[in-house]
Amino acid sequence: MAGDGSDQRALQYEQTLMYGRYTQELGVYAKEEAARLRESGQRRSVRDRSRTLDLLEYDKGRCAKCRICTVRCQKFLISRVGEDWIFLILLGLLMALVSWVVDFCIAICLQAQKWMYGGLDSNVFLQYLAWVTYPVVLITFSAGFTQILAPQAVGSGIPEMKTILRGVVLKEYLTFKTFVAKVIGLTCALGSGMPLGKEGPFVHIASLCAALLSKFMSLFGGIYENESRNIEMLAAACAVGVGCCFAAPIGGVLFSIEVTSTFFAVRNYWRGFFAATFSAFIFRVLAVWNRDEETITALFKTRFRLDFPFDLQELPAFAVIGIASGFGGALFVYLNRLIVQFMRKQKVINKFLMKKRLLYPALVTLVLSTLTFPPGFGQFMAGKLTQKEALVTLLDNRTWAKQGIAEEFDYIGNAQAWRHPQVNVFVTLVLFIVMKFWMSALAITIPVPSGAFMPVFVIGAAFGRLVGESMAAWFPDGIHTDGTIYPIVPGGYAVVGAAALSGAVTHTVSTAVIVFELTGQISHILPVMIAVILANAVAQSLRFMTLLYLSGKYKATPIMLLV
Amino acid sequence: MAGDGSDQRALQYEQTLMYGRYTQELGVYAKEEAARLRESGQRRSVRDRSRTLDLLEYDKGRCAKCRICTVRCQKFLISRVGEDWIFLILLGLLMALVSWVVDFCIAICLQAQKWMYGGLDSNVFLQYLAWVTYPVVLITFSAGFTQILAPQAVGSGIPEMKTILRGVVLKEYLTFKTFVAKVIGLTCALGSGMPLGKEGPFVHIASLCAALLSKFMSLFGGIYENESRNIEMLAAACAVGVGCCFAAPIGGVLFSIEVTSTFFAVRNYWRGFFAATFSAFIFRVLAVWNRDEETITALFKTRFRLDFPFDLQELPAFAVIGIASGFGGALFVYLNRLIVQFMRKQKVINKFLMKKRLLYPALVTLVLSTLTFPPGFGQFMAGKLTQKEALVTLLDNRTWAKQGIAEEFDYIGNAQAWRHPQVNVFVTLVLFIVMKFWMSALAITIPVPSGAFMPVFVIGAAFGRLVGESMAAWFPDGIHTDGTIYPIVPGGYAVVGAAALSGAVTHTVSTAVIVFELTGQISHILPVMIAVILANAVAQSLRFMTLLYLSGKYKATPIMLLV
Repeated sequence: MAGDGSDQRALQYEQTLMYGRYTQELGVYAKEEAARLRESGQRRSVRDRSRTLDLLEYDKGRCAKCRICTVRCQKFLISRVGEDWIFLILLGLLMALVSWVVDFCIAICLQAQKWMYGGLDSNVFLQYLAWVTYPVVLITFSAGFTQILAPQAVGSGIPEMKTILRGVVLKEYLTFKTFVAKVIGLTCALGSGMPLGKEGPFVHIASLCAALLSKFMSLFGGIYENESRNIEMLAAACAVGVGCCFAAPIGGVLFSIEVTSTFFAVRNYWRGFFAATFSAFIFRVLAVWNRDEETITALFKTRFRLDFPFDLQELPAFAVIGIASGFGGALFVYLNRLIVQFMRKQKVINKFLMKKRLLYPALVTLVLSTLTFPPGFGQFMAGKLTQKEALVTLLDNRTWAKQGIAEEFDYIGNAQAWRHPQVNVFVTLVLFIVMKFWMSALAITIPVPSGAFMPVFVIGAAFGRLVGESMAAWFPDGIHTDGTIYPIVPGGYAVVGAAALSGAVTHTVSTAVIVFELTGQISHILPVMIAVILANAVAQSLRFMTLLYLSGKYKATPIMLLV
Repeated sequence: MAGDGSDQRALQYEQTLMYGRYTQELGVYAKEEAARLRESGQRRSVRDRSRTLDLLEYDKGRCAKCRICTVRCQKFLISRVGEDWIFLILLGLLMALVSWVVDFCIAICLQAQKWMYGGLDSNVFLQYLAWVTYPVVLITFSAGFTQILAPQAVGSGIPEMKTILRGVVLKEYLTFKTFVAKVIGLTCALGSGMPLGKEGPFVHIASLCAALLSKFMSLFGGIYENESRNIEMLAAACAVGVGCCFAAPIGGVLFSIEVTSTFFAVRNYWRGFFAATFSAFIFRVLAVWNRDEETITALFKTRFRLDFPFDLQELPAFAVIGIASGFGGALFVYLNRLIVQFMRKQKVINKFLMKKRLLYPALVTLVLSTLTFPPGFGQFMAGKLTQKEALVTLLDNRTWAKQGIAEEFDYIGNAQAWRHPQVNVFVTLVLFIVMKFWMSALAITIPVPSGAFMPVFVIGAAFGRLVGESMAAWFPDGIHTDGTIYPIVPGGYAVVGAAALSGAVTHTVSTAVIVFELTGQISHILPVMIAVILANAVAQSLRFMTLLYLSGKYKATPIMLLV
C-alpha cells in the first residue's frame, strides 16, 4: 500500500499473496477484517478473549464446556445470520417490492394508453394522435429525466456490472441518484409500450439496491464497510435482479453467472439462490395479495399436455429453430451495432442529435408507434397487443391454423389480434417477426434505461410459433403413427423458439431454465436444451469468425479482440 | 521449473504469474501448448506460418483476403469442433450407453428376484431362502470382485473426484481396471435391491470414461496429452455422470459443480451443459427405442394438476418438511459416521472382519433383506417394492388416505404394497421411513460401488408423502376457501420432501433442479426451493456447530476443520 521506494519485487510478491488470499478466503478475510474493526473500538484483542475462554474451560470442567459451546454457537449465529442472511433477505424483499411496483405502474400506463385509444374510436385521426403522442411523451420524459439526473442509468447496465464485479470501481454507477433515475426511467420507458425489456436494468437496479443497502447497514456494524464483501453481495444482487423480474430464481442465478462472470465461487451461488428465491417468492406473493392470481404460479403459465409433449420425430424441427435462432441472434446483434455505428458516423446527424438530445428518442418512438397503430399497419402484425399479451397468446396450447385455414380455433380475447379477415395467420406472424426484429434493434438504441431480453424473447416465441403452426398445418394429425393421435402443439415450439433466440442474443444457455420457470412447465426440456445449445453454437461461432476476420484486418490475434 | 538455486523471491513471483495465467487462460494455454507440440513435429514455427499468411494478403489483395478468412475459419472449426466438442459428444454417447445398459441389467436382476420369489409361493421358507440368498450372493460377488480387481472402485467416488479436480494426481482412480470394477460392481450391487444409489458412482464412472477416452484420443493428436485440459474435461464428465443417470442435464451440471468445486469456470459449465444434454438425450432416446416409452419424457413423470398446484397457506407445511429434512439429513450423516466408527473401534469385530472381508457385506445384506421379506416384516413397510417402484407410487398424484381411512383410493398395481388389511397407511409410511433410514445408513457402509443419493431421495419422498397425507386427512376439502375446492396433492409434498432431504444430506441446493427434471413438472418450484434452502440452512448450521464443538475440544479454529 505504501509504495515508498521499497523493493519492487517484494511488493509484487506481497500483492500476489494478497490476491491468492482474496480469491480463496474472501469471506474469512472479510470476517477477520470486520472483527478487527469492531475489536479496535473495544481495545481488547481477540487473543485475550480466547484466553479467557480457555481459562473458563480449565476452571469449571464439564459445565463450562457447555457454556463455551453456547457462547460459540451464539457467536456463530450472530456472525452468520446477522451479517449475510439478513442483508440478503432485506435485498430480496426490497427488490420484490420494486419489481412489483414497477410492473404495477407499467400495467397502469399501458392500460391508460388502451383506454384513451378505445375511448376515441369515433375518429381515427384523434385515435392515431392519442396512440402516438402517449409513448412519445413517456419516452421523451424518460430520456430527459435520466439525462438530467444520472446519465449512467441509460441502457441495461449489465456491461457496467460486469466491469464492477471484476473489481473496477465505477462509483457513479452505484449511487442513489442512479437508482431513482433507473427505476423511474425504466417505468416510463416500458409504460410507453415500446419493444424494450425490464431484465437487464433490473440486474443493475438490484446491484444499486445492494450497494445502497450496504451503505445503510454500515451505520450499524463494521462488516458492511468491507469492500470485498460488497462485491460478493453485488454478485448475489445480480441473481436477485433476474429472479424477481421473472419469478425465476434458478434461471436468475445461472443467467447472472453467465452474463457477469468468467469464474465464480460456489459460495456466492448459494447466496444468490437464497436471495433470488426469497425475492421471487415475495414477488409472487404480492401478486396473490393483489388478487391477480389465486395462488403462487408461473408468470406465463402454459397448459401443454403432460402425457405426450412432443414426438421424437419432431426433433429436427426443434433443431432447425435452434440453428435459425443462432443466425437470427447474430443478425440482431449485428443490426443493432450497425444502427449505432450509422448514427455515430453520419456527422451531420450526429451533431444535430447531440444538440437536441431528446429529438432522437421522440423520432424513433414516433416511427415505431406509427407502425404499430392498430387501424393502420398494426392490424397485420398484432400491433394492438402489449409485449405480455403477445407472449401469452403465442404460448397458447391451442393450434391457430389447421390445414392452412385459420378457422378451427375460436380466437378468444387477445388472440383475436392475430386474426385478420383478409390475411392468413402465417403472414401476420411473419410480418410480426420481421417488423419487431428491426424495431427492437432500433428501440434499444434509445437512450433510456432498457434491456433487449424481453423483446428478443417475444420475437423468438413468434418464430417458434410460426414453425409450430407450419408443422401443425403440414401434419394435421400429428406425426406419431401407431395408435393414438397426438396433434402437434405449436405453443411448445414457441417456448423453444423464445429460449433459443434469447440464448443466441445473450450468448447464454440459462435462458432454457428461465423459460421453464416462466412457463411453469418443463416437459419440453430436451428440445429446449438442444435448440439453445445449437443457437449458441451458431451465434458464438459467427462471432468468433467475425473476430477472426477483423483480426486479419487489424493484424491482431483473435484472443486480443475477444476481450 | 528448474529451481537451481536462483532467487527464491523471483521464483515465487514467477509461480504466481503462472497461476494467474493458469486460471484465466487455461483453454488458451492448452491450445498453445498443443499447437507447439504439433508444430515441433513439422519443424515450422507458428510465426513463420502467420508471416506466409501476411505475405499472401499483401500479394493478392481482395481475393486472397477471402481465402485467408476461409483458412482461418477452417482452422477455427477444426480446433474448436475437432478438439473439444467431438470428445464431449463421444463422452455423452458412451455414458448414455453405459447408463442404459446398467439400468437394463439392474432391471433384469430385480425381475429375476421377483420371479423366483413369485414362483415359490407354495412354500414360505423356500420363498425366504430365495429372497435372501439372491441379494447376498450378488452383494458378496460385487464386494469380492471390486476387492480383487480394483479396491479404488468402492464407494461413490465423489470425494476422490473432488481431490482429483483440485489438481492432486490419483492415477489409480482413473484406470480401465477401476472402470470395469465400478460398472460391474455397481450393477450387481444395485441389482440386489439393497437401498443403494447409482448417482455418485456414475460421477466417478463418467470421469473414468473421460480419462480413458482422453488416453485413447491422444493416439490421434497432441491436445489430448495435455494435463490441464484433462482436468477441464473431468469437470464436464462429472456433469455428464449425473445427467445421464437421471436424464437431468441442468441439475447434473449444477450438482456436479456444487459437489466437486469451490470455484468454477463458466467455460467448463458450458461444456458440461453440452455433454450432459447430449447424454441425457441419448439415454432417453434409448428408452424410446427399447419401447419402454412412447416419447422422450421425464424418468419419474408426475401428473399434478397445473391450474392450482398448491395453496399459499400450505407453505408452512412445506417449510416444516424443509426444517425436519435438515435435521434428518444431519442425523443421517451422523448415523452413517457412527456405524463406521463403531466398526473401526471394536477391535475384535474389526480384526475378524479384516480377515473375512466378504463376511460383513453378506451379513449386512442378510439382515436387511430379512427385514424386507414381504410375508414377514416387509408387509408393514412395502418391502416388496424396488426403489424405483416405491418412488413412482410415492409421487402419485392421488391421495391415499382421506379422513384417516385408506379406502377412497383404489390401490392399483404397485400401490397395493402400501396397503395392509390391519395397519393404517400412516403406520406403513412411518415404518418405511424409520426402517429405510437406518437401513440405508448401514447399507452404504458395505464396501461395494454405491452412492447414497437415491435411497435418501426415496426416504425424503416418503416423509413428504407422510406430511402430505396428514394434511389431506386434516383438510379433506383443501385449504382454499373461496369458491372452487382444490384438494391437497400429497404427491407434491413427496416431491418437496425428496428434494429437501437429499439436499440436506449432500449439502446442495441443486437437488431442487434435479427433482424438476426427474418428475417433468416445475409447478412446485417455490415450495421446493424454500424447503431445500431451509434444509440446507439447518443441516449446514448443525455441521458448523459440531465443528465448533470439536474445535473447542481439539483447540483448533473451526476453519481448520472445515477443510
